[in-house]
Formats: sequence, structure tokens, C-alpha cells
Amino acid sequence: MTTVNDDKQVSGNGTGLTQEEIFAAHEGGKLGVDVTAPLASARDLSIAYTPGVAQVSRAIAADRALVDRYTWTQRLVAVVSDGTAVLGLGDIGPRASLPVMEGKSALFKSFAGLNSIPLVLDTTDVDEIVDTLVRLRPSFGAVNLEDIAAPRCFELERRLVEALDCPVMHDDQHGTAVVTLAALRNAARVTGRELADLRVVISGAGAAGVACAKILHTAGVGEIVVLDSRGVLHAGRDGLTPIKRELVEFTNQRGLTGDIGDALRGADVLIGVSAGTIDEELVAGMADGAVVFALSNPDPEIHPDVAGRHAAVVATGRSDFPNQINNVLAFPGIFRGALDAGARMITDRMKVAAAEAIANVAADDLGAEHIVPSPLDPRVAPEVTAAVAAAAREDGVATA
Amino acid sequence: MTTVNDDKQVSGNGTGLTQEEIFAAHEGGKLGVDVTAPLASARDLSIAYTPGVAQVSRAIAADRALVDRYTWTQRLVAVVSDGTAVLGLGDIGPRASLPVMEGKSALFKSFAGLNSIPLVLDTTDVDEIVDTLVRLRPSFGAVNLEDIAAPRCFELERRLVEALDCPVMHDDQHGTAVVTLAALRNAARVTGRELADLRVVISGAGAAGVACAKILHTAGVGEIVVLDSRGVLHAGRDGLTPIKRELVEFTNQRGLTGDIGDALRGADVLIGVSAGTIDEELVAGMADGAVVFALSNPDPEIHPDVAGRHAAVVATGRSDFPNQINNVLAFPGIFRGALDAGARMITDRMKVAAAEAIANVAADDLGAEHIVPSPLDPRVAPEVTAAVAAAAREDGVATA
Repeated sequence: MTTVNDDKQVSGNGTGLTQEEIFAAHEGGKLGVDVTAPLASARDLSIAYTPGVAQVSRAIAADRALVDRYTWTQRLVAVVSDGTAVLGLGDIGPRASLPVMEGKSALFKSFAGLNSIPLVLDTTDVDEIVDTLVRLRPSFGAVNLEDIAAPRCFELERRLVEALDCPVMHDDQHGTAVVTLAALRNAARVTGRELADLRVVISGAGAAGVACAKILHTAGVGEIVVLDSRGVLHAGRDGLTPIKRELVEFTNQRGLTGDIGDALRGADVLIGVSAGTIDEELVAGMADGAVVFALSNPDPEIHPDVAGRHAAVVATGRSDFPNQINNVLAFPGIFRGALDAGARMITDRMKVAAAEAIANVAADDLGAEHIVPSPLDPRVAPEVTAAVAAAAREDGVATA
Repeated sequence: MTTVNDDKQVSGNGTGLTQEEIFAAHEGGKLGVDVTAPLASARDLSIAYTPGVAQVSRAIAADRALVDRYTWTQRLVAVVSDGTAVLGLGDIGPRASLPVMEGKSALFKSFAGLNSIPLVLDTTDVDEIVDTLVRLRPSFGAVNLEDIAAPRCFELERRLVEALDCPVMHDDQHGTAVVTLAALRNAARVTGRELADLRVVISGAGAAGVACAKILHTAGVGEIVVLDSRGVLHAGRDGLTPIKRELVEFTNQRGLTGDIGDALRGADVLIGVSAGTIDEELVAGMADGAVVFALSNPDPEIHPDVAGRHAAVVATGRSDFPNQINNVLAFPGIFRGALDAGARMITDRMKVAAAEAIANVAADDLGAEHIVPSPLDPRVAPEVTAAVAAAAREDGVATA
């Protein structure tokens, strides 16, 4: 390939992949549409198309609920992006985001048996994205928002949840948060502590950091301090965005100020979702039995081997080190469980239930280097699906 | 099934289908998404998703044209409807239209190997539909408009052709028109006449009638008279819609007035696209060697056996009589040819080329009861594809 000369992302992740095999695997894209009704004979045509199909259309016109039974939409996830925060590449636009969205759709199918189509948008305007998806609502059964930049992603998700009567989830927020909670539950078990007793520092207040803070609070973590690029978030700081003002209402109860060094001193847990770096001496100053999740990709905030000199448990976002915090453990089962239950929305309880299910799959072989299941563990998606569907019913948002 | 008691559309078409088998074939819908890249191992995941996919995204960010090569969109047809003119059922809404759109997508795949997704819209506002598709433009490679009511369909198609740099076609207009032209070419051959010598009466000025008038004019038919529910369209009539004013500029050059009886007296060809009825004596009054296309479904304007007492060639839209005028002969190959050529639009020449290709496939076995190929004839789509791609290149709209 002559089009791309910088292979840092690939070699840097230690996978040994070549550009040739990557591009060859993407020729023509990674998805196809599959016809599930036979169309070989005139009779087949009469059933699947005219005149037979008119019966089905009339039935749905008479009873709209039948659309869930007789079309593919109830099990179809729209993977929606505007291409503004794609992987570590940033705002590369909707077209360049497509290979990622196709990959996401491929994962939905492979891990949860859900059909999924990428819908990438040539606009970054929240009103326009909301309008577009409201108009398209009859075409799909759920919306997975993907790679949309903060802070716009927060308003967009909130407004879509309000506007659409179907599951909507921004995976960069909640997928990461769910798997992080699962990993933290098991890290606490491994180190003999309770979530309520933990002092957690989250470095990064973007999509993942905000969602991690929220789910850890919901799950009962004792103390949470969040930092952005300017330092610790506290109620007295000027110029906080709406989402950061929301965060300081339930985080940093001791009113800590300062930088990452101030925050980490004596802390039990570091969750890095910042794309920054964290020096070894800061980790050395954490509490005994510290837990470090250095989740930035492709370069963790601190190399896991270095963190491991001081921390009892270390996790990253990478597949070439133990304890990979990978969203694929969460989103396929979350959406499948929500759709199985006919859920009108994805609630906090459903997210926490997903985290517990993921943690429990790893529990039979628990250890400092095994706090989460492998992304390829076939038990995960069915367990998450069942837990999420049950939580939807408990929360009263299920219709099936 | 207890939800639908009226099976007129099915039994009326003589197919002998049961409601049970029709609904069983529609359980869960007729489409699925198929993953074309393997996802069985960690290595597969690293190629199709992170980190490998980042290489492909960066390549497209650097050279936007690569999106056609490395994503599925260049061969993906969006089947778009607002559900306002679905089959003979009328305005049943987007949800109830979905089984038809899924059927359409299934035909695209089965006949032309094209991926296709139904996008049904919860709005009938032309501005909103245009805005929606412009925003979604990076998600697909072509737009098949389907079952959108006239006269709105004319403005919508015109505006989308202007707004989108990809093939856009309203199949209810042009699919029908292309197959009608193909059938008329062969009917003229069978009866020993030239298109230029024919006097053609089109009963119906909706989507199909308007497009038929235009393509027959483009193809050189000598005289065309179009009727709507108020009678013959002529330049002196009050209250003509914009599209009808356009029609009278090139039809009815003799300034005929009156009703269908006045129009048919001595005419060579009747094309019924009206959902009305036409009496036997009117057909009896046509010229010798008359040609009657009674295309309304499920009930032709005149029963083909009755028309056959007076006409030399008779065609319908139904599969249970000879000479079925079926859009599936046209649209798969038209879109495949356009996409193969990287065409920015679908031109008149491409449509006429499609008609000629369809007519030529039937030419080796031509007869009064064989003026068009069978919808299942496997030669049709490849021939149409090749002819349309060649015409796109001749017209200078091809990019590949």
C-alpha cells in the first residue's frame, strides 16, 4: 500500500499485522445484505413480493405492533456516527469513519446475532442529527451512537433518548463504562475490598470518563474524583461545561483541588481515559493494593509493566496485555437484551446488570491477571443478554 | 391468521397462495446482515476492527475516493419510501410499507447482487426527505425511491437528482416506463410497425403514466395522448399541475379533447396505468393490430382474454397471463449498471438502453405472447447491466 505510510497504530499495538492483509480484508467493505426468504421461483416471488406481500403490509397497517414480527427492524441496530471522534484519529469525517462502523456492525452480528447497518451523517449539528433519526425511526429497532465527539455526544444522546421510543446508547460512553465497572468489581474482589470503600480517580472527562463516573456512582463506589486537562473537577472551578457541573454534584465530595498528582496520592484506583501520560512515581504514591486501568489506545497512560511494579491489578485497552477492557464484552449483549425484552430505553439498572454479568463470567477463574473475560469468550454475550433483559423487566421498560 | 380476513389480493391474482405461508415467510423479516470478513479469532478482530481498521480509516481520510473501494457503500442501494402509495394499498405509512421495501431489497440482491437497505421515513415533506437523504449521503451508493405518491414523487425525485451525486431513480416511474418501452418495441416488431408510426394512448397520469409518456417520447414514438381522471390532457385545459403542463408540451400534438373513448378511436396502442376500467367496445374501436397493455394490479383495466378478442398483442402486470410487465426486469440491472460505471446519475439514454437490452433478450423467441422475457430469466440483469454501464460512459456520467 502506498496510500498509508504510517503504521504506528498497527505495529505499536504489537499485533504483527501487515497493511496488505488489513486492506485486502476491507476490499468491498465488510458487510453484505442477506436474503432470508427464497426467491428462486415465480411462487417465491409471489410470496416475498407482489402480490403476497400486500397481505403483510395490510396487516401492519391495521395493527402497527405487527411490524416487530414481520419485518427485520425489531432486531436491527443502526450504528450512527458523524465521524468526529473516530478511534484515536479524531474528526476524520463520516466517510473515513465507515470502516469502523462496518466493523461495529460485524461485531453486533458475530457476537449477538443482531442485524446492524452503519448510518453515517454528513452533519455534526445536534438538531439535524436528531431530526434525521426521528424521521428514520421506522427503519430500525435501536441506535448505537459511535465515535461522536464530547461534549456534543452528551446532548445528542440525551435528546435521542427523549425523542425515540427505542434503545439508544452512545457506546464510547456506556460500553466503556460497563466493562470498566465489571473490571473494577473483580479487581476489588481480587484485592479484598468493597466498591463502597474505594477512592477512585478518573483521569479524563470526555465521553468515557463521564460515563465511568456516573456508572461507578450508581454502583455505589465510595469516592470518585474526575480530572480534565485543567486538573481536578471541583464545584469552585470556573467555566465548567454543563456535563462537568453535573459531575461535581456527585464527585469530589472532599472538595479536592489540584492536578493528577494531588488526586492520586493515596487513591485506590486510577482509571485513565485521557490519552495523556501518567508518571510512575504518581502510581507509586497510590494506596497499597492499588488498581490501575490505563485505557487509552493505542498508548496506555502508563505502560502496564511499569504500573505493575506498584499496582496489584493492571488493565489496559489492548489485546496484547492481560485484562483487556474491551467494549465488545458489553454492547452486543446490552442491545440484544434490550431488543429481546422490547425495551423502550436502556436504563442505568440495565447497564449495571450488564457489568455484573460480565464480572461473573470471569469470576470462576479470578486473579490479578484475569478480572475480565476474553473478548472472544462465547459465554459473555448470552449472559449479558439475559441479565439486561431481566433488568429491563424489573425497571418496567420492557414490552416483550 | 386472524389479523387479515380479506384475501382478495392473493386469490384475485390466481396464485393459490395461502395467508399462512405468506405470513410464515415474513416472520422476522426477509433480510439479514451478513459479515464478509471473518471474526473468529483475536487476529481477525484486530484486522476488521481495532487496531487494524484505523489504517483503512486514515487512508480514506487522506483520499476520499478510497471509500468506494474499502466500504460497502459503493454497491449499496437505499430503498427509500414514505409509504404513501404502496402497491394498490395507497397511503398506509412507512411501517406498513416495510415488507414491500424488504422485498425490493431482496430482489436487488437476488437479481443483481447488490446490497440494499430499506430506509422508510416518518415524514411526507419533500424538504425533510431531501434533507434527510443529503445528510445520509455517505451511507449509501444509490437511491431507489419507491411507492411515493404523485405528484409529490416528481418534485422529490427531481430535487434528489440535483442534490445527490449518485444514481437516484423512482422505480414506480422509470422501472415501469423502461419495461413498457421494451414491451412496446417488441410489440411493434411482432405487428410489423415502427415506434415512430404508432399512435399511443396512456390512460393514467400518475407516476407510471408520466414516466411512460416521457420515455416513449424520448424513444421516438410518433404520437402520444395522455389521460387523467378528467379526460385527455391538452394545452387548453384549466388547472393542470406542473407535471401535466410539462406533458402537454410534447404530447397530444393534434390537440385532441374528450374522454378515453375519443382518444382510443383508431389508436394503435393503449397503455393502462390508471387503476380504472376500460370497456371492450373501446378496444374494439382501436386500429387493426392494436396493442393493449392493461397494467393495473391486481385488476387490469380490461381482462386480457377480453382485450385479446380485438388486440393483436396484450400484456398485463400479472404473472398468471402472458407478457408480464414487471419492473424486476429493469431496476436491478439499471442500478447495477449505474454503480458498475460509477455513474453520478441515471440519464434518459441509460433508461432507453435498459429497455433495448430487455427487448433484445426476448427477441430470439419473439411472438404475440412473448414480447418480454420472464422475470426469472437469468440473462436479463447482466444484459441490462452492461447496456446501462455502456450508456453511462457514452453520456459522460461514468467515473469508473
